Amino acid sequence: MTDENQDALVLRQDQGHVARLILNSPANYNALSRAMIDSLSAALDDLAQSDMRVVIIAAQGKAFCAGHDLREFQAARGDDDGGRAAYETLFAQCAAMMQKLPALPQPVIAEVQGIATAAGCQLVASCDLAVAAQGVRFGVNGVNIGLFCSTPMVALSRAIPPRAAFELLVTGDFIDADRAQDLGLVNRVVAADVLTAETMALAQIIAAKLPAAIRMGKRAFHQQQGMSLADAYASTGPVICENLLRADTAEGIQAFLEKRKPDWD
Amino acid sequence: MTDENQDALVLRQDQGHVARLILNSPANYNALSRAMIDSLSAALDDLAQSDMRVVIIAAQGKAFCAGHDLREFQAARGDDDGGRAAYETLFAQCAAMMQKLPALPQPVIAEVQGIATAAGCQLVASCDLAVAAQGVRFGVNGVNIGLFCSTPMVALSRAIPPRAAFELLVTGDFIDADRAQDLGLVNRVVAADVLTAETMALAQIIAAKLPAAIRMGKRAFHQQQGMSLADAYASTGPVICENLLRADTAEGIQAFLEKRKPDWD
Amino acid sequence: MTDENQDALVLRQDQGHVARLILNSPANYNALSRAMIDSLSAALDDLAQSDMRVVIIAAQGKAFCAGHDLREFQAARGDDDGGRAAYETLFAQCAAMMQKLPALPQPVIAEVQGIATAAGCQLVASCDLAVAAQGVRFGVNGVNIGLFCSTPMVALSRAIPPRAAFELLVTGDFIDADRAQDLGLVNRVVAADVLTAETMALAQIIAAKLPAAIRMGKRAFHQQQGMSLADAYASTGPVICENLLRADTAEGIQAFLEKRKPDWD
Repeated sequence: MTDENQDALVLRQDQGHVARLILNSPANYNALSRAMIDSLSAALDDLAQSDMRVVIIAAQGKAFCAGHDLREFQAARGDDDGGRAAYETLFAQCAAMMQKLPALPQPVIAEVQGIATAAGCQLVASCDLAVAAQGVRFGVNGVNIGLFCSTPMVALSRAIPPRAAFELLVTGDFIDADRAQDLGLVNRVVAADVLTAETMALAQIIAAKLPAAIRMGKRAFHQQQGMSLADAYASTGPVICENLLRADTAEGIQAFLEKRKPDWD
Repeated sequence: MTDENQDALVLRQDQGHVARLILNSPANYNALSRAMIDSLSAALDDLAQSDMRVVIIAAQGKAFCAGHDLREFQAARGDDDGGRAAYETLFAQCAAMMQKLPALPQPVIAEVQGIATAAGCQLVASCDLAVAAQGVRFGVNGVNIGLFCSTPMVALSRAIPPRAAFELLVTGDFIDADRAQDLGLVNRVVAADVLTAETMALAQIIAAKLPAAIRMGKRAFHQQQGMSLADAYASTGPVICENLLRADTAEGIQAFLEKRKPDWD
Repeated sequence: MTDENQDALVLRQDQGHVARLILNSPANYNALSRAMIDSLSAALDDLAQSDMRVVIIAAQGKAFCAGHDLREFQAARGDDDGGRAAYETLFAQCAAMMQKLPALPQPVIAEVQGIATAAGCQLVASCDLAVAAQGVRFGVNGVNIGLFCSTPMVALSRAIPPRAAFELLVTGDFIDADRAQDLGLVNRVVAADVLTAETMALAQIIAAKLPAAIRMGKRAFHQQQGMSLADAYASTGPVICENLLRADTAEGIQAFLEKRKPDWD
C-alpha cells in the first residue's frame, strides 16, 4: 500500500512484506509533536494487525528526527496550569508510542539520515535495529537547553553501555554514526546514497524468514530481557517447543536435511 | 584422569588441576542430541563434586558444535503427540545442562574451533570464558530453517549487546571470531594451531590462583548479576569477609607484603 | 574552597562550581584504609549538601588508588575474633561510601593516573564518568593474593561487559587505559600531562549546564537502571515533566528558539 495523502505526517510505502513508514514533517525536522506521535502510533497500531513482516521507520528531509516540538512546549505554558496537563499527556503518549515498537509483532528497523537527537535518538533506540548513513549525528542533547533527556535515556541506556550513555546525557555531545555503531546503537553504517536500499535489503532478508518464527522470536526476545537465567529459560523453552511443532518448521528442517529450499509459500 | 572409552560422546583429559572435556561426535558436528546432553551433564555433575579447579569444553572435528540434532527432531514427529513430549524433555534437559555451567564451582572455558551455531553458540555463551581460533564462525541461525533460536538467545543476549544479539537472531548471519571478540562473546582469539595450548595456558593461570578464592568469586559473580547495587553489595560483602578470614588468604597477603611467593601447596 | 590542612587524607580544591577531591596518601598508593574511607565519605557528605555542580576524584602520587590497606587487614587478625568484626565494618563502610557516588546529586568524574586496582578500580567504576591518562593500568587483581575482588566486582560488572569482567577477576590481569575505554570503564583517554586539565574541562562543560536539569537527570538515570521498560518510563515521565515546568528550562528553550544564550545566571 502507498498513501494517497502526501501531506500526512506519516507516509507509508510497502514493498512486498516490508512496510516503510516515513516521518513527513521535514520543515520542523520531523519533530515528535503531539500530532506526529498520534500519527505514528496509529500507523503502528495498523501494522500490529497486519500480516506485514518487517517495519522500517524512515524520514524525509535533512533530519531523521530532532526530538519533541519545542514550540508546542512553549505554547502550552499559556494554559491555566502552566502546561502541566499538556506535558503529562504528551510524555505519556510518547512513552506509549515508544513502547509499541518492541511490542510490535514485526521487527522494526530505523533508517537514519541527517541527525537523530533527543526523542529522535530515543526513537532510533526504541527500534529493534538501526541502519545509519555515514555522517549521521546522534545526541541526547536536551541538557543544552535545560531539559535533561530523562525519557530518551530509558531507551538509550538499554541500547548502549551505561557510562557512554551518561556522558552523552550530561555533556549534550553528539556522536557520529561510526561511534554509534561501536556503542551498539546502530547495526550498520552505509553511504548516504544507498541508505534506503541497504535498509530495505536488510528488511527483505528478515522478511524472507519464516514469519511465524520471527514473530515468536521477537516476542520472546523482549519478554526474557532482564529476567534471571532460570526465568528466561522457563520463558523461552515453551516458545521453541511451539516453534518446533509447527508444520512449516518441520518443512524448513526437512528441506535443510535434504539440501533443498523449504516450500514455505 | 583420561577416559579409556574413546567412543564416548564426551571424553575427558585432565592436565594437573584442569579438566578438559571433549565433545566427541565429529560425524554430526557434535550435535547436542539427547545423548550428548546427558553425557555432558553427567560429566559436569562429576566435576561439580571434584576438586578440579578449571574446566575446558573443547570438541573434536571440524565444528565445535552445530546445535541440536535435527534428525532427532524429525524422528520425534512420528510420536503419538507429534513430538511434543520429546521436545519438552529435550529443551528442559538442555536448559538444565546450560545452567550447570555458571553453577559449576569451577570457571569454565570454551575452546572453540570451526563453527559454533545455534545451541552450539549457546554452549559457548554459557561458559564463563571463551577462546576461539581465528576463522571460527558463530551464529544463532536457526531462523534460516524456520526455528528461531529462542533458547540460545537467553545465553547470547546476556553475553553481547542487545541490538547485536537481535540482528544475529533475525538475520541468521554468521560472525567471525574477531567480531565475536568485539561483541564480548569471546575473550581471546588465537591461531588455530595453538588453540588448545593457549586455552590450556589460560586455564592453568586460573588454576594457579587460590582455589577457594576462585570458587567463592565465581559463585558470587553469578549470584549478584541483575541485582540492584544495594542488594549486590549486601550479597558480596559477606563473601569477601569470609575470603579474607581464611588462613590461606592471610598467607597470600602476608607473602605479598614480604615480596615472596605464597605457600599454598 | 581549598583545604588548609595539606596533610589531610582527602584534599579539596574548588574551581568555580567544580569540586576536586584529591586522595592524599601517596606513600601507600592512596590505599582505602578505614581512615581514607571515612575521609572520603565525609567529603562526599559535605558535597551532597553543597551547591557545587560537578565533583572530580583525583589522587596524588604514582597511583590513583591501589585498593584496600593490606597492612590494616593483617593487623586486624590479632583481634579476639580474628578480624571478623573489623572486616565486616570496613567492607560495610566501603560499600556505603561507593554507593554515595551514584547517590550524590552531582556527576562524579574519576581522574585516573598511574594504577587503579582492586577497590581502586571499584572507585573508578563507581564514579559516573572516568578520564584516564595514557598508560594507566586497571585491574581487579586481588585474586593474585588469594582475595577475590568480590566487592569491586559489583561496580565493575555494571560498567563493562560480563565476560570481560569475569576474565579480569579470575586472571588478575591488568588492562591499559585504551582497553578500559573500549570496555566502557573509561570515557576518555588523554596524555598524562593534560590529565588534570582535560578532566577539569569536561567537568566545566557539565557545570555550565542548568544545574537543576543535571541533578534531576543524574538521579533519574540511576533510579531507572535495571527497571523494566514500562517501569522506567513510569519513573522518568514525571521527571521530564517537572524539568519542563521549570522557569529556567522555559528560558533555556526560549533562548534556543530565539538563537540566543539562555539567561541562567
